[in-house]
Amino acid sequence: MSWYAGVEAGGTKFNCIVASDPNIILDEIRIPTTTPQETLPRVIDFIKAVENKHGIHIEAIGLGFFGPICLDQNLPTYGFITSTPKLAWRNTPVVSYFQKELNIPVAFDTDVAAAALGEGAWGNATNCSDFIYVTIGTGIGGGIISNGHPLHGMVHPEIGHMFIPHDRLLDPFEGICPFHRDCFEGLASGPSINARWGKPAEGLPADHPAWQLESNYIAYALANLALSFSPQRIILGGGVMKTPGLIDLVREKTVRFLNGYIQNELILSRVNTFIQSPGLGDRAGVLGAIALAKTQE
Amino acid sequence: MSWYAGVEAGGTKFNCIVASDPNIILDEIRIPTTTPQETLPRVIDFIKAVENKHGIHIEAIGLGFFGPICLDQNLPTYGFITSTPKLAWRNTPVVSYFQKELNIPVAFDTDVAAAALGEGAWGNATNCSDFIYVTIGTGIGGGIISNGHPLHGMVHPEIGHMFIPHDRLLDPFEGICPFHRDCFEGLASGPSINARWGKPAEGLPADHPAWQLESNYIAYALANLALSFSPQRIILGGGVMKTPGLIDLVREKTVRFLNGYIQNELILSRVNTFIQSPGLGDRAGVLGAIALAKTQE
Repeated sequence: MSWYAGVEAGGTKFNCIVASDPNIILDEIRIPTTTPQETLPRVIDFIKAVENKHGIHIEAIGLGFFGPICLDQNLPTYGFITSTPKLAWRNTPVVSYFQKELNIPVAFDTDVAAAALGEGAWGNATNCSDFIYVTIGTGIGGGIISNGHPLHGMVHPEIGHMFIPHDRLLDPFEGICPFHRDCFEGLASGPSINARWGKPAEGLPADHPAWQLESNYIAYALANLALSFSPQRIILGGGVMKTPGLIDLVREKTVRFLNGYIQNELILSRVNTFIQSPGLGDRAGVLGAIALAKTQE
Repeated sequence: MSWYAGVEAGGTKFNCIVASDPNIILDEIRIPTTTPQETLPRVIDFIKAVENKHGIHIEAIGLGFFGPICLDQNLPTYGFITSTPKLAWRNTPVVSYFQKELNIPVAFDTDVAAAALGEGAWGNATNCSDFIYVTIGTGIGGGIISNGHPLHGMVHPEIGHMFIPHDRLLDPFEGICPFHRDCFEGLASGPSINARWGKPAEGLPADHPAWQLESNYIAYALANLALSFSPQRIILGGGVMKTPGLIDLVREKTVRFLNGYIQNELILSRVNTFIQSPGLGDRAGVLGAIALAKTQE
């Protein structure tokens, strides 16, 4: 049996796992995100302790990281966290650190690309070559799988900051994105719901007008993703998407906004397949890091 | 020397060419788009006449077509024009027709993907692996090159129908897209300018408020493309983009709307490189069809 380590590195915690696949997990840990000097050695300690305890060798490690990160292997900054607002982490050479400490292949990508790979390997996007994982929570982000591989481009996608229609008569709220004010994340992230209504998403009943607005914004963004990438599937995760009934509103409105323009039966008559929740639930990211590690085989 | 045929098939005309590259062109013709029964044989006649006249053999043909088209080689409808509003062309098996008549390899893609390939081969996107060709004219469309190849996904991108912010206080015009009303094409295509101001784009002076609105919409769309695909370059062609000064407004506003979020020096300080006109001008499409043919080598 082959073993892999996976790290889902987020702004508040690092989820770390050693596993062969989602059904054969050796150990897991959560480590708070403080500074690279403190957090990264704790990840190494965890991995080495699991290796020693179980007498195994880990083949490769997958790192799904908050960004922005440098994924261009031709640049000297490959494997760095770059211009993040988390100042302690700015310009941290993550990949070289893990390579030096563990001396195994290190696969590196965004947290959302890792989650997408996880959904493609074991979740609700198996058998899809072109699909998107979108998370709507504290922030909004998306991992794009194109032709079976994460799409990077020059840096990596940042679809959470897409500009979408904002009808100020319907929703006079200005938006909270410090860069763009009323971009997708500025209008539809968990904190924007909290700021608009004075209550967190969990505190708003199913018939609250918040969910009509929220589903409008998500559906505009999903329509734009469908028109831009022509995916076979969109996986919609993150804390906000746990709201009962929200995914159904998003499905109905995405189809309504596209209005038959994309003549594909998957969108026209199987939107419950086209837009789905993560099959791996909250574990898409950390299990995705295992899927990412396996790309090094 | 190797010879190729290229066809840029649009709603009003087919531009056909036989060439080796942009500097060595044997012959060209424009054929009106009427019906498949009439137009397609005229393309074949042109190609065979050029072969006979010059005593050459054409290696492959590239077809850049108006859509929607089927690009999935696993489907029986591969190489068809599918659900186009041009009824005479609906469900036309284009690729098999050319294969049968010419018995040479046939490369097939959207007109905008072909134009993108042309710009990548000989225009203003050489040395780029990830870039986008956008045309803003009678319609709006985009060809996406990802990792050196046209991105298709399930069908193909239709970025002209992306939803963008529409401030109705600034621009009460409702938009003209028959599917979405005020999507990007509905607000910013040539016909939408004509409908909003009662004059075609060419009739509006450089200081007309039309260009502030137009550059807003294009810049929102380009910001969304930059955030979605993280391209190294965006090539901005089509009739509307011939308006003097418009590309400068678009550059300035795209950078302003992104507001430093994408920390890349190309966007932050070299936007004249990041956003460019087509190096091949109006011939990006037809020469792109030659670049497309060459992918069959």
